[in-house]
Amino acid sequence: MVILGGGFAGLYAARHLYKAPVRVTLVDRQNHHLFQPLLYQVATATLSPSEIAAPLRALLGRHQVGVVLAEVTGVDTAGKRVLLSDGELKYDYLVVATGATHSYFGNDKWAAFAPGLKSIEDAVQIRRRILVAFELAEREPDPEIRRSLLNFVIIGAGPTGVELAGSLAEISRHSLPGDFRNIDPKQARIILIEGVDRVLPAYPDDLSSKALRTLEKLGVEVRTGARVTNINEEGVFIGTEFIPARTVLWAAGVAASPVARSLGVELDRAGRVLVTPELTVPGHEDVFVVGDLASINDADGKPVPGLAPAAMQEGKHAAHNIRRRLQGKPMEPFSYWDRGSYAVIGRGHAVGIAFRRFKQSGFTAWMAWLLIHITFLIGFRSRLAVLLDWAYSYLTFGKSARIITGPAPRLDRLRRAPALPEGGEKASLPESHYAAKASGAEPVTPARH
Amino acid sequence: MVILGGGFAGLYAARHLYKAPVRVTLVDRQNHHLFQPLLYQVATATLSPSEIAAPLRALLGRHQVGVVLAEVTGVDTAGKRVLLSDGELKYDYLVVATGATHSYFGNDKWAAFAPGLKSIEDAVQIRRRILVAFELAEREPDPEIRRSLLNFVIIGAGPTGVELAGSLAEISRHSLPGDFRNIDPKQARIILIEGVDRVLPAYPDDLSSKALRTLEKLGVEVRTGARVTNINEEGVFIGTEFIPARTVLWAAGVAASPVARSLGVELDRAGRVLVTPELTVPGHEDVFVVGDLASINDADGKPVPGLAPAAMQEGKHAAHNIRRRLQGKPMEPFSYWDRGSYAVIGRGHAVGIAFRRFKQSGFTAWMAWLLIHITFLIGFRSRLAVLLDWAYSYLTFGKSARIITGPAPRLDRLRRAPALPEGGEKASLPESHYAAKASGAEPVTPARH
Repeated sequence: MVILGGGFAGLYAARHLYKAPVRVTLVDRQNHHLFQPLLYQVATATLSPSEIAAPLRALLGRHQVGVVLAEVTGVDTAGKRVLLSDGELKYDYLVVATGATHSYFGNDKWAAFAPGLKSIEDAVQIRRRILVAFELAEREPDPEIRRSLLNFVIIGAGPTGVELAGSLAEISRHSLPGDFRNIDPKQARIILIEGVDRVLPAYPDDLSSKALRTLEKLGVEVRTGARVTNINEEGVFIGTEFIPARTVLWAAGVAASPVARSLGVELDRAGRVLVTPELTVPGHEDVFVVGDLASINDADGKPVPGLAPAAMQEGKHAAHNIRRRLQGKPMEPFSYWDRGSYAVIGRGHAVGIAFRRFKQSGFTAWMAWLLIHITFLIGFRSRLAVLLDWAYSYLTFGKSARIITGPAPRLDRLRRAPALPEGGEKASLPESHYAAKASGAEPVTPARH
Repeated sequence: MVILGGGFAGLYAARHLYKAPVRVTLVDRQNHHLFQPLLYQVATATLSPSEIAAPLRALLGRHQVGVVLAEVTGVDTAGKRVLLSDGELKYDYLVVATGATHSYFGNDKWAAFAPGLKSIEDAVQIRRRILVAFELAEREPDPEIRRSLLNFVIIGAGPTGVELAGSLAEISRHSLPGDFRNIDPKQARIILIEGVDRVLPAYPDDLSSKALRTLEKLGVEVRTGARVTNINEEGVFIGTEFIPARTVLWAAGVAASPVARSLGVELDRAGRVLVTPELTVPGHEDVFVVGDLASINDADGKPVPGLAPAAMQEGKHAAHNIRRRLQGKPMEPFSYWDRGSYAVIGRGHAVGIAFRRFKQSGFTAWMAWLLIHITFLIGFRSRLAVLLDWAYSYLTFGKSARIITGPAPRLDRLRRAPALPEGGEKASLPESHYAAKASGAEPVTPARH
């Protein structure tokens, strides 16, 4: 049998088929599983990619699961085969766990200016943008451009947007000051934009209010009820209002993986598969859909959220139903056990609900979040050293992750280039802005010109 | 004053100007210093990039050194200014420490097929190639292509080539077996090619012989006296002999940074600046050249090697001479203190010479190498946690670094594409190679077709 996707849902399905009388093959386009709940910390230069990713082969080696590194383009349910970009795979049972990606609500050209956060590459790219913005601001002579380099806009105030905004506020206030001479990173403006009237709209009103107060205390400017109408390389439009910002991050929309469409069944508005209570595709009892790609309600009639614990439970349940099928027993319906969900706002601050009932906020919610993640990470990496390293980095605003890779950033690229021949770009910069005083003692002090 | 380059030479120059009555600005195109001696371990998936890189601002923050992230294009010694790709900097004193890069001896088109190892990006790229080769071999139905995927050629048997070859032999024999179903990573051939008649030509004959024996014991095929005449995407030519290999690494030639040419002074054959005993550029007492870019002989008349300790000593000495100049004292000539140099062949195996005299090999040489690097790393990162993590990864053939980033590899790209329309590539693959048996139990077993 075949599992598509090595996220939490696919990984847990694979692990729980251990010792079942099937040969399991897991297909992913990446060779690693990603501990997605901490991905925003890679984006904000607190953790390194290797601290939250682990090779699938290493995680699944002792479970006798084969791993195939390939891109899935679709599923042919009639022919019982998975289509890859470079071949195909036959299956008897199939678990589809290809998850979700960002949605720009039809404005796909915004993707170039406002990257979203789903993969290691996204996170490294966002980190590069953030750190390079400070580097360029340090050297930029034009005060207006410098200001736009120090404006950071995050679009979408769900958990990811709130985590990114809080984390950005923290690094600009705690980690970066002292590193620069010409700018004060504390002057960076972190602007969080949300279309509806409150942050964390999935949480109860009072937790939203508490989150808002904490964000404001951290120095985040929150703009609720604000609808983004356009994004370009210089900033963000809210109707006719323009917010200049060279760094814009997208945390607003989620769209289901396109693999869903190839199944030829009914999808919900977000493109997710409306699965049966047994987590199968209606009309195809051999195809299971789990994780962020599955649309299902829990016992209360509320939709099961797109969170890691739900994905793990669904993956495990699909494995359970496959085992029952192999034993000739009837499948059982899935029920979601909501142990709680938390959104971190900053070090020592979170909001959350435990067991659907107990609202928590501030330090106690943060401690609960920390304990849950430490527990998961131990299971995930099985390495105390990593845990210590993580705790150390996280609590000391670690500097080790603050590495920029890629080519050197160029100030001249910030300006709209006049039509110049290749290599003639320098002409667009007044030299006097860069030449330091003849003493050579103070080479780059554009701010005082 | 201005320092160009944040490698060992530039970093030590900057640190030793601490409290001198000058404002120091260090320019680098990267925001991080790299612990280059361990870079090959990132390339062979033993360490993560963040374990051997540290942000320059963090390393220099307390030394009151300004850091400018920019690309240096040249030096105008007459006008006393550094030319950047996007501006310029005036200097009174200048320390040039822009180091060296790979040289393909005029065959620059080989660079695409045989990457060299100088930066974090190089290392991540090489790691990706190595890991992807095993992934593709696992799925490749054609036995000939599969063999060429499991052939790894390293060109150049200096310390870097030997370290890469030994490390590759180890991961294919110790780390990877168990991860794959259709291939045995132990079958990988590691072929080390050297133009002269022995490995590690800079070392004495008997140490070369010992290194050769150790390499062969690790399973490396060593080809000395073999001159590479061409490289393409399918392999390497030695005269008329063709070695099929999809992964070829370049560890042969080193060329000085092109900044040297802009100084308008005499260069040696490798393009390095022939400096005065005081480490200045002849005719320009305000310009120092240090590290791999400087060509200078030690007291015995032997050239000072391009090693980290030499770069550190030169950087420190340039700072010393600048301080003396500022105090109105005459400069002093540089003398190299050769504490020893080691080349690692594998875990527990190295060769080296301590204090120019004491030849070491095997485990004692390796212990010496390990102690030296642990000492340096402590000074460099100041973090016991990192040290523990490194020791752990290194000694257990750590799996955490084995992350592939970038798009999914594609089998069909291995074949010379016939002229097909976009999207028609699949036609070049016989479907039967990929379709598994109808049972679905064994999806990818091309080897048995």
